[in-house]
Amino acid sequence: MKCRRCGKQAEIELRSHHTAFCRDCFKLYFLRQVKRAIKEQHMFSPRERILVAVSGGKDSLTLWHILLELGYNASGLFVDLKIGGFSEHAREKVEKFAQKRDAKLIIVDLEKEGIPIPKVVKKTGKEPCAICGQVKRYFFNRIAYEQKFHILATGHNLDDETSRLLANLLRWQMSYLVDQGPVLPPAYRLVKKVKPLYRLTEYEIAAYAFINNIDYFAGKCPFSKGATFLRYKHYINQIEYEFPGTKLDFYQGFLKKMKPFLTPFQREETTSSQVCPRCGYPTLAPLCGICRLKEEIEKAG
Amino acid sequence: MKCRRCGKQAEIELRSHHTAFCRDCFKLYFLRQVKRAIKEQHMFSPRERILVAVSGGKDSLTLWHILLELGYNASGLFVDLKIGGFSEHAREKVEKFAQKRDAKLIIVDLEKEGIPIPKVVKKTGKEPCAICGQVKRYFFNRIAYEQKFHILATGHNLDDETSRLLANLLRWQMSYLVDQGPVLPPAYRLVKKVKPLYRLTEYEIAAYAFINNIDYFAGKCPFSKGATFLRYKHYINQIEYEFPGTKLDFYQGFLKKMKPFLTPFQREETTSSQVCPRCGYPTLAPLCGICRLKEEIEKAG
Repeated sequence: MKCRRCGKQAEIELRSHHTAFCRDCFKLYFLRQVKRAIKEQHMFSPRERILVAVSGGKDSLTLWHILLELGYNASGLFVDLKIGGFSEHAREKVEKFAQKRDAKLIIVDLEKEGIPIPKVVKKTGKEPCAICGQVKRYFFNRIAYEQKFHILATGHNLDDETSRLLANLLRWQMSYLVDQGPVLPPAYRLVKKVKPLYRLTEYEIAAYAFINNIDYFAGKCPFSKGATFLRYKHYINQIEYEFPGTKLDFYQGFLKKMKPFLTPFQREETTSSQVCPRCGYPTLAPLCGICRLKEEIEKAG
Repeated sequence: MKCRRCGKQAEIELRSHHTAFCRDCFKLYFLRQVKRAIKEQHMFSPRERILVAVSGGKDSLTLWHILLELGYNASGLFVDLKIGGFSEHAREKVEKFAQKRDAKLIIVDLEKEGIPIPKVVKKTGKEPCAICGQVKRYFFNRIAYEQKFHILATGHNLDDETSRLLANLLRWQMSYLVDQGPVLPPAYRLVKKVKPLYRLTEYEIAAYAFINNIDYFAGKCPFSKGATFLRYKHYINQIEYEFPGTKLDFYQGFLKKMKPFLTPFQREETTSSQVCPRCGYPTLAPLCGICRLKEEIEKAG
């Protein structure tokens, strides 16, 4: 197979685009997709300070790598979940990545916060992926706001976005659907959130990380085994394999044809200006979810 | 496993409802689902004349069987597609069914109409399932209107409806989505269409047909092999198996939460009062699709 752009031997086949590229042309293609996402979705300008939420995995480190390469002012934020045999390896990769590029890295240590994930799961019996997502979201939002970043960027890819979209559509979770999209506008004490890799699949990101020697952590979280979101990824990948191009059509179609009708389903929180009396995080409850969680863990001892 | 209703030995397990029934209680459950569909969706009243589109398969014959049992005035319409080794067997089952119940049966013979499906496929190279669907829809609508039926009923089941919904959502086919639902209101020269089995799965209908000795044709159309709609059925069945209850939630949620927003995507045809000068069928084109097809086949010789 030949590279569509230069005619040299192709190395990466992109079935969904009915095409293939050599390494150099794939890099160009990949960067173009990111630039297009940033531009078309009006994500940010070169003057804005960006906080990249990094887990140590291929998606978030590739995103940080590219933003730095493109000359953006991008710092990293790593939340150390304190999951033994997992978090320490991820943290090491993130620290090395930042050091090598002399980039600013902020670390939140959940041990110091009193809510390491394994302890929370053990004490509360809550579903690990749900609680972990909530805790990470909290610190991403809080640090981005308190440290005066303009933008919070995450490494969500097309597989993440479409599998979540499929799951939300199968159950018509309107309040979740309204929040889906590559850009979430700023709200009271919440900075604007963006997903510059939303046009690219996991496969494409892995290929890009590989050919750019991005040293990421490839381990799987021990809590994610059998997680529901992985099942929907499986289905969306099967469908994409059989009908190439479905993922991008599905997501773009949602943004263009359904999203405009979802405004009535907007949640109240996003427009309220009420805050948690302890930490200042926006919430409609007397205490925010994380301060309540901390209280629960303290009481459990 | 015990029957949920009477406590006897269960014979049919319904994972999506987390329950199981014995034969008699399953019959009751099944009839309740049909009655609920008819009532909740305001499908028809006992005084209305119903035309049931029958293929000879389990869904349409079960529907006809139940409507007659419930005392409705229901006639059958069979379109003989003239697909060798297939249509003649289906026709035989339909004729026997009608005879046994002394029910009125109308037959359209595509040979006499000059457009037997194999000939159309051969001469035009068109996709068989698409052309067959178009031809059947045409005669269903035309005969129902010309013979003054109030209602056109089809045997579409929950698997048909959800797999079509999934396919339409993955590509955001708004003009198809707007037409999805258990009831299509009447339009100019088009009678109201209903799907009384929309709450029931293929599995449930097969079980009902079996225990009621409904003698149906179980053969597969030779043209349907590898058809796309079968693939989406496969995916929706996989998802249902893993997450029981998804199908009904998915479909009901669509009707309740998305359908109301789709009115702007209504097609022009459904509101126009223009007709084909040859056959009187509603169309925006100078000739309707079927009269154009007939012309094409005649020219090809």
